[in-house]
Amino acid sequence: MTLRIAVLGTGLMGAPMAANLLEAGHRVTVWNRTRAKTEPLVARGAHAAQSPEQAAAEADAIVTMLESGPVVTSVLFDSGAAESLSPGALVIDMSSIPPATARDHATRLEASGAAHLDAPVSGGTVGAEAGSLAIMVGGRREDFDRAKDIFAALGRATLVGPHGAGQIAKLANQIIVGVTIGAVAEALLLAAAAGADPAAVREALRGGHAESRILEQHGQRMIDRAFLPGGRGQIHLKDMNTIVEAARDASIELPLSEATRELFQELVDGGGGDYDHSALLLALERRNAPARVGAAPDKLPARTPD
Amino acid sequence: MTLRIAVLGTGLMGAPMAANLLEAGHRVTVWNRTRAKTEPLVARGAHAAQSPEQAAAEADAIVTMLESGPVVTSVLFDSGAAESLSPGALVIDMSSIPPATARDHATRLEASGAAHLDAPVSGGTVGAEAGSLAIMVGGRREDFDRAKDIFAALGRATLVGPHGAGQIAKLANQIIVGVTIGAVAEALLLAAAAGADPAAVREALRGGHAESRILEQHGQRMIDRAFLPGGRGQIHLKDMNTIVEAARDASIELPLSEATRELFQELVDGGGGDYDHSALLLALERRNAPARVGAAPDKLPARTPD
Repeated sequence: MTLRIAVLGTGLMGAPMAANLLEAGHRVTVWNRTRAKTEPLVARGAHAAQSPEQAAAEADAIVTMLESGPVVTSVLFDSGAAESLSPGALVIDMSSIPPATARDHATRLEASGAAHLDAPVSGGTVGAEAGSLAIMVGGRREDFDRAKDIFAALGRATLVGPHGAGQIAKLANQIIVGVTIGAVAEALLLAAAAGADPAAVREALRGGHAESRILEQHGQRMIDRAFLPGGRGQIHLKDMNTIVEAARDASIELPLSEATRELFQELVDGGGGDYDHSALLLALERRNAPARVGAAPDKLPARTPD
Repeated sequence: MTLRIAVLGTGLMGAPMAANLLEAGHRVTVWNRTRAKTEPLVARGAHAAQSPEQAAAEADAIVTMLESGPVVTSVLFDSGAAESLSPGALVIDMSSIPPATARDHATRLEASGAAHLDAPVSGGTVGAEAGSLAIMVGGRREDFDRAKDIFAALGRATLVGPHGAGQIAKLANQIIVGVTIGAVAEALLLAAAAGADPAAVREALRGGHAESRILEQHGQRMIDRAFLPGGRGQIHLKDMNTIVEAARDASIELPLSEATRELFQELVDGGGGDYDHSALLLALERRNAPARVGAAPDKLPARTPD
């Protein structure tokens, strides 16, 4: 079924997602704070809206892909978008934001007759372009079913619970990714410090129980000392902070997540916020100087001006 | 080339390995402390030796697969095996023991004209039976080359450095496996405590960056609360203790490994030494009662009598 879909936020993730929705035959209206980022999509057949309010007024569904909870709140509720929604319209927030904020958005939208799904993703720009994102969805089953055609154009969606549960699943994802990066960093640093060849160790471990996407991809970046993002250190720190808060809200203590949060904090404090999150190795090495994985010089991204 | 191989230690791992060496056409002599465990191998064509010394006297290569460093030391050096080795014979120790002990064995054997490789494995009994073990080898390149036909019958071998480096690689493997089990446990416990469905979350995360053998296999055991081994908790605690010691010897600090060691200690102290290592979840839950992954009752192994 052809739907009228507004995409709010056409950055690194939102732009390829909007392109895939166009490709699937939907009628797509786009809005972005920096207008220029919508132009390539307009050239491919999208309509450009002047404001979130204007985009929302014409849509069956709104897809938001924005950088933080406060930005989502502002775009949905301070811009007039929520008020201009058609009755029964569906807001699908694919941004990664705190579960409590997502639940608050759902409550406010349902009070005004609209519906809400929190649907953050894993898979990065590669997954966004390929339409192969892992999509973790919180909300009502009937809304999840209504969104099926939209999700089908973007990746593989799983309903994981009520409002906010999608964001919780994303935090679970970030725990595993962050802590496993730390595990691979510790394994390779021990190998180097104790006299084995870290590259050969990584190679020897593949295909065994230690096998993972992280050993495969981030482990290779550590061996090459190539810390170009990828996923940025300061984004992962933001997520680890949200994880520690969510754990506190749920009255639980997560020792490995907390220790990993510390290491990400040290990475960012040491100037590595724009490095790939595999650069967690650098924070571990700073604690353990002069131990080091390999002799190659670091490949780092150019410093972003403040 | 057909070799005369002595296999010392034909337990859960050693027995299928000896069977694969027989299958590959080698002349295999077996010895085990509990003699009955060699009988199925004798029925398949192996020779049974009365002692390690007798087994070693007739062999081009000795494969040891024993439970700890002191047992390997005792079988090799206190039983007369080392003294009865033919000149140039190769000792391949596939047990998981501390790197310092492996280096000591290598020094003693080389002093008496024999050769040594430390070659611990990952892959468990399934890998041993299938001949698909990941074999991490420390020692001299020329000895690694001489052992090629032996390794080919058992799995995929990688030379990772000098004497002791195979054991270091195995510790690196155990860091990644243990810490990743902890990461999956924390992710699923947060999901449960914060109101998402842990089984659906695990399903949603598959295929994304969080993908790993551990999420796949141990994550499922946590969801099912089925803690039958598999890899036993007290073995993983032994390995985590060796890791912390090896890190201290190398003057480095590994915070995630140390936090994971603590959790394994609590699992064993709480009576879970014989549970599968995925039962690390139980130690995490004990710290965070009443938070719990799912409502199913625990499936636990029968208590081993002391």
